[in-house]
Amino acid sequence: MKVNRVQELWKNQQAAIGGWLTIANSFPAEIMAHQGWDVLTIDMQHGLVNASELVPMLTAISTTDVTPFVRVPWLDPGIIMKVLDSGSYGVICPMINTREDAERLVSYCRYAPQGTRSFGPRRAVLYAGEDYAQHANETILTFAMIETQKALDNLDEIVTVEGLDAVFVGPSDLGLSLGYTPGNYEEPVLLEAIESILKKAHSQGIRAGIYSYTAKFARRMIELGFDYVVISSDARLMVSQAQQVLEEIRIK
Amino acid sequence: MKVNRVQELWKNQQAAIGGWLTIANSFPAEIMAHQGWDVLTIDMQHGLVNASELVPMLTAISTTDVTPFVRVPWLDPGIIMKVLDSGSYGVICPMINTREDAERLVSYCRYAPQGTRSFGPRRAVLYAGEDYAQHANETILTFAMIETQKALDNLDEIVTVEGLDAVFVGPSDLGLSLGYTPGNYEEPVLLEAIESILKKAHSQGIRAGIYSYTAKFARRMIELGFDYVVISSDARLMVSQAQQVLEEIRIK
Amino acid sequence: MKVNRVQELWKNQQAAIGGWLTIANSFPAEIMAHQGWDVLTIDMQHGLVNASELVPMLTAISTTDVTPFVRVPWLDPGIIMKVLDSGSYGVICPMINTREDAERLVSYCRYAPQGTRSFGPRRAVLYAGEDYAQHANETILTFAMIETQKALDNLDEIVTVEGLDAVFVGPSDLGLSLGYTPGNYEEPVLLEAIESILKKAHSQGIRAGIYSYTAKFARRMIELGFDYVVISSDARLMVSQAQQVLEEIRIK
Amino acid sequence: MKVNRVQELWKNQQAAIGGWLTIANSFPAEIMAHQGWDVLTIDMQHGLVNASELVPMLTAISTTDVTPFVRVPWLDPGIIMKVLDSGSYGVICPMINTREDAERLVSYCRYAPQGTRSFGPRRAVLYAGEDYAQHANETILTFAMIETQKALDNLDEIVTVEGLDAVFVGPSDLGLSLGYTPGNYEEPVLLEAIESILKKAHSQGIRAGIYSYTAKFARRMIELGFDYVVISSDARLMVSQAQQVLEEIRIK
Amino acid sequence: MKVNRVQELWKNQQAAIGGWLTIANSFPAEIMAHQGWDVLTIDMQHGLVNASELVPMLTAISTTDVTPFVRVPWLDPGIIMKVLDSGSYGVICPMINTREDAERLVSYCRYAPQGTRSFGPRRAVLYAGEDYAQHANETILTFAMIETQKALDNLDEIVTVEGLDAVFVGPSDLGLSLGYTPGNYEEPVLLEAIESILKKAHSQGIRAGIYSYTAKFARRMIELGFDYVVISSDARLMVSQAQQVLEEIRIK
Amino acid sequence: MKVNRVQELWKNQQAAIGGWLTIANSFPAEIMAHQGWDVLTIDMQHGLVNASELVPMLTAISTTDVTPFVRVPWLDPGIIMKVLDSGSYGVICPMINTREDAERLVSYCRYAPQGTRSFGPRRAVLYAGEDYAQHANETILTFAMIETQKALDNLDEIVTVEGLDAVFVGPSDLGLSLGYTPGNYEEPVLLEAIESILKKAHSQGIRAGIYSYTAKFARRMIELGFDYVVISSDARLMVSQAQQVLEEIRIK
Repeated sequence: MKVNRVQELWKNQQAAIGGWLTIANSFPAEIMAHQGWDVLTIDMQHGLVNASELVPMLTAISTTDVTPFVRVPWLDPGIIMKVLDSGSYGVICPMINTREDAERLVSYCRYAPQGTRSFGPRRAVLYAGEDYAQHANETILTFAMIETQKALDNLDEIVTVEGLDAVFVGPSDLGLSLGYTPGNYEEPVLLEAIESILKKAHSQGIRAGIYSYTAKFARRMIELGFDYVVISSDARLMVSQAQQVLEEIRIK
Repeated sequence: MKVNRVQELWKNQQAAIGGWLTIANSFPAEIMAHQGWDVLTIDMQHGLVNASELVPMLTAISTTDVTPFVRVPWLDPGIIMKVLDSGSYGVICPMINTREDAERLVSYCRYAPQGTRSFGPRRAVLYAGEDYAQHANETILTFAMIETQKALDNLDEIVTVEGLDAVFVGPSDLGLSLGYTPGNYEEPVLLEAIESILKKAHSQGIRAGIYSYTAKFARRMIELGFDYVVISSDARLMVSQAQQVLEEIRIK
Repeated sequence: MKVNRVQELWKNQQAAIGGWLTIANSFPAEIMAHQGWDVLTIDMQHGLVNASELVPMLTAISTTDVTPFVRVPWLDPGIIMKVLDSGSYGVICPMINTREDAERLVSYCRYAPQGTRSFGPRRAVLYAGEDYAQHANETILTFAMIETQKALDNLDEIVTVEGLDAVFVGPSDLGLSLGYTPGNYEEPVLLEAIESILKKAHSQGIRAGIYSYTAKFARRMIELGFDYVVISSDARLMVSQAQQVLEEIRIK
Repeated sequence: MKVNRVQELWKNQQAAIGGWLTIANSFPAEIMAHQGWDVLTIDMQHGLVNASELVPMLTAISTTDVTPFVRVPWLDPGIIMKVLDSGSYGVICPMINTREDAERLVSYCRYAPQGTRSFGPRRAVLYAGEDYAQHANETILTFAMIETQKALDNLDEIVTVEGLDAVFVGPSDLGLSLGYTPGNYEEPVLLEAIESILKKAHSQGIRAGIYSYTAKFARRMIELGFDYVVISSDARLMVSQAQQVLEEIRIK
Repeated sequence: MKVNRVQELWKNQQAAIGGWLTIANSFPAEIMAHQGWDVLTIDMQHGLVNASELVPMLTAISTTDVTPFVRVPWLDPGIIMKVLDSGSYGVICPMINTREDAERLVSYCRYAPQGTRSFGPRRAVLYAGEDYAQHANETILTFAMIETQKALDNLDEIVTVEGLDAVFVGPSDLGLSLGYTPGNYEEPVLLEAIESILKKAHSQGIRAGIYSYTAKFARRMIELGFDYVVISSDARLMVSQAQQVLEEIRIK
Repeated sequence: MKVNRVQELWKNQQAAIGGWLTIANSFPAEIMAHQGWDVLTIDMQHGLVNASELVPMLTAISTTDVTPFVRVPWLDPGIIMKVLDSGSYGVICPMINTREDAERLVSYCRYAPQGTRSFGPRRAVLYAGEDYAQHANETILTFAMIETQKALDNLDEIVTVEGLDAVFVGPSDLGLSLGYTPGNYEEPVLLEAIESILKKAHSQGIRAGIYSYTAKFARRMIELGFDYVVISSDARLMVSQAQQVLEEIRIK
């Protein structure tokens, strides 16, 4: 089975740098796969990507050696198993708030006896190889999004769930849940929460990832110890550069 | 944030007149948006519209000032939040039968602290404006469909759920649940149920909407006091007129 | 090979009544196929249907015994042969203005030795049967649209082209070419031109069809002798009924 | 209402032979519908078919008299009801492990008073006829997939659920759950389990179906008494023949 | 009929600033429409946009007051008329090398008596208004791409074609034709050719546009006198910013 | 630039073995790319693949080292250049009947000064590398389909066109043009014509390819000297195996 390069990076003490795909089309996905990201995550939650566009986008990423992850819309076994059958090497699941949530997530991502994933990796075998069934349980990464006060309250119970590979911080939702405006990442209480999540994850030997809007914040998070940082998204990159170009042309 | 014109109509004591979209394509949606409806509802439950076609249809409606609503397939947080991120100004949710159902519906549609909606209004900010996060909770309308005997039994508990904006009557399903053939709207027991739903809703200060097959029935419902009436659907309009035209040409 | 029911109607001295499809989706196509039309024409010229949606729409029509025609975007061999390979039983080609145009149209629609159609009826054999190759040349109908002054000038040369089955009048374009506003069908000069086209066609033993907006005009055309009349389109039917319904509900 | 031909076969003591569709496109579906299968099942679980492609594929099958079934991704009312509204004559639901699971499956597939299915058979009436509402409850077949140890443990409770028409064995998942490699169908413990499922189903007067990779295994299962056997899938058929052809051309 | 804002800008002696769309999806089109461009051009030639995606993208632009243009794949009447029926307010046609090419371009874009455009502006009337037929000929802009030595040789004959609104320089192809590497815009011979095209156009009272990769080059072109400048494309903007962000995060 | 592996095979005196794709979907394309073909050709002429599905299919092939070719629908510069911009490494063009046809084909496929291809290899650079512009003219293969009596008559003039890489025989159309039923490949006159095409091509130092239905015929053609043989198609492979499986299960 094709190795999960994020696992390799982690073995070498390196953080994985991730891009984020919100446009439902294989062409921008293939372009992004040529830019130098370690990981590309297809965002089926807030991104405008649905099941019908998932496979062409995963296929586009598979023309390179970038590792494909998917953020699923919700903790739903139907879509999580579809994402895995389609060849994703990581599942980022939003709103994991309790131990039971985390256990369900792991269970949906693992074949028996570790879990309850149903067998039928139609496209995954094309991407990963014919021995997929033998190695999928150890190769596919599971990320529990920690993004509410409730999840913070239950964090000890979440990070100790057998088979969970990592937590992933959604700073906008976490900030919102703590009472701040989404997008503001500099609130001390929020930063403190982020740091405590990282520590709890590491203390249990699991990894921690985080979403960020800027390279600067992402670097800070790597320096803090995060194992996986996401910077911006396809759409946001386009908007930033469009703003820059239009300012340059419009301003006298 | 762009105002919700249905709220404006209601402030002015006017009922909102709605069309219904079941064809998964942006072109008939854009056509319908030019006919004079106050609202267009994309029907993802019984209509043949799925997540992949949702955004182009919402975009088509957004070329006009018609207010976009979506009927979701089920009380499912993944799809409800996707519908809102895509820019819908109202969510009509089928089969709300208990207080807990109604509470979940409201929760999925509201950001903290009122609810548990996850943050990421990718297209909604394009439609509504950059201040979407600040005003979405008061602008997005939530409709609980009352369409079973069980919902009637629990109606007091449903209409008093904090944050629910309106009930919406599905007369076919309600009739079926009461023992009648779907489509027959004239059963006295059914009409009585409809009237009692309207009254209960108004008694709690929330609004009431209803689906109907004909303009005539819709007018009767407005006269009864309904705040939002839907008349027919894109497909049914096409069928009615095709029948008329074919009768005219075929009959000697 | 499945018979062309339009040919049967014509043998029985009956005009074929046709609907018109402009919405790129199989669902309205299937609905329309259940209304009672003899023919449904998928409009790839002014309709918003492209090659990718052609096959699902033809397939939808094939669930019934309605005869499928396609209006192609232009006199182009690539698209005409694709339309035929996909299983259309008639090709309506716009802007046939000269004998050479008409000859090319016929040639693209017929296998050797009558024409130059390339062989590969991938879906057509599913619809028509395995003996498609043997009978296609006599079963597929070719319609040359007569819709300019230039075509009127060359009409004698067009209607005598070997293998052309019919002319088809586009009254809007013809009117425009004669100097009138498109949509106005009552100009005496236009009506006269329409009648002369019909006569010329019949005098050469070929058929004549015409597009119309209303059942009333279509009946008049049948009475005049037209063999195939189209009434309105899917989108226009929807609009007419929507206007009716909205007037009924809005007007006091 | 159009009869369910699988019910007819069963009345005549015949097993139904089924194909399996995993490619999200109406053209291979239409091709497969012409090969001689009794049933074609669109696989929305492990197949790469999603809601947006469901209707064109069902429509393609409807051009023939092959009976259309759908395997849904999960026990989810939203998608199950959509599948039925779209005109499927059978629902195969994965991972039915308890009596409650089976009861929910039946409930989602039946109108009141037998179940809780919501009314709106938009495409189903086109396929089945206008009297669909009256006969759907007795015509649509429900299949509970038995594919885990847990389901075996609860089998008595599952097969006695009122309104369940059949069980359907997923040998790969069942084998996996019993501790074997998926794809190995010859383990005695697995074969024994398969036989016991068949017997339990028949003892309660319900039917039994099974998935298989080869015609040989399928025949064995028919001889054992199975009422419905599936052989291979569109993609697997293509692969087998490609392998054969390439061996023939490559080997000296 | 909705005015063409590019014509307004030109009346006010202002150059129009244009973005360029190559991703076949309505979401990035809608995002780009909110950034502040005067014009957005959907590129059906080298962009990966085809006829099926054209209408949703035009619709997305129509949610704002940005003017929609389309670059067509070739001088082909079928696709040019489809683009106009779909509501484009400008047609940029590649490889106009002779007077006859330019005359055909104009003819395809104008209704009789000025041209041979066929009547059926299905979506255009939704965008532009019901009086579209009366004003389209003066409102739709035609751009002839000058991008070969042959076109330079025939430039006097091209710019004097009645009804041509503007030339549009494709510097990559023009450079290639003159013997330079595409993408190198600084060759003196190329810059001289660009300037001569501009002068010839202006000398005949028609406008001139040009494609550029950078805001800097675009400004130079505006200063030179160009009336319409395009800067970069959706995909290129995304790439530039991705490169910037990745350099920032990767470099020590 | 990524090498064209067909050129490598030819340098090593090996024939290229090709598969054929007619199903408009990336999943069967990716499956086929894993079976062991040297080349996969996407058939946009008789296959049911259109421009919108081209890029996802090419992308699917690009996950492997199989060489991607496209058969275009017709000798049309718009679609030929689009196919090349999308990353195809070979263009098979139907119905090349004259020297002028062949010259146009070559011209559309080559950048200046060899041809008139317009510059903008949007996806091609992702597949082939950033130096695509420098090497495309020598790397992209052009195939002229010889499939009519007229082409046979003009063969000397066709095979000597500068820059044409190969001829490709379409035996069905060629047979039809010679007066035989399509699909019958054993007519002596046809076989003789095939052999003469091969000889003429080789005598001018260009290559020859041919389509065939069976591995057996393909081997014969390789033994005859053909450089590239295509065997069957995705759909036909599926049908053959389905027939085999159904015979096995149905026959007593």
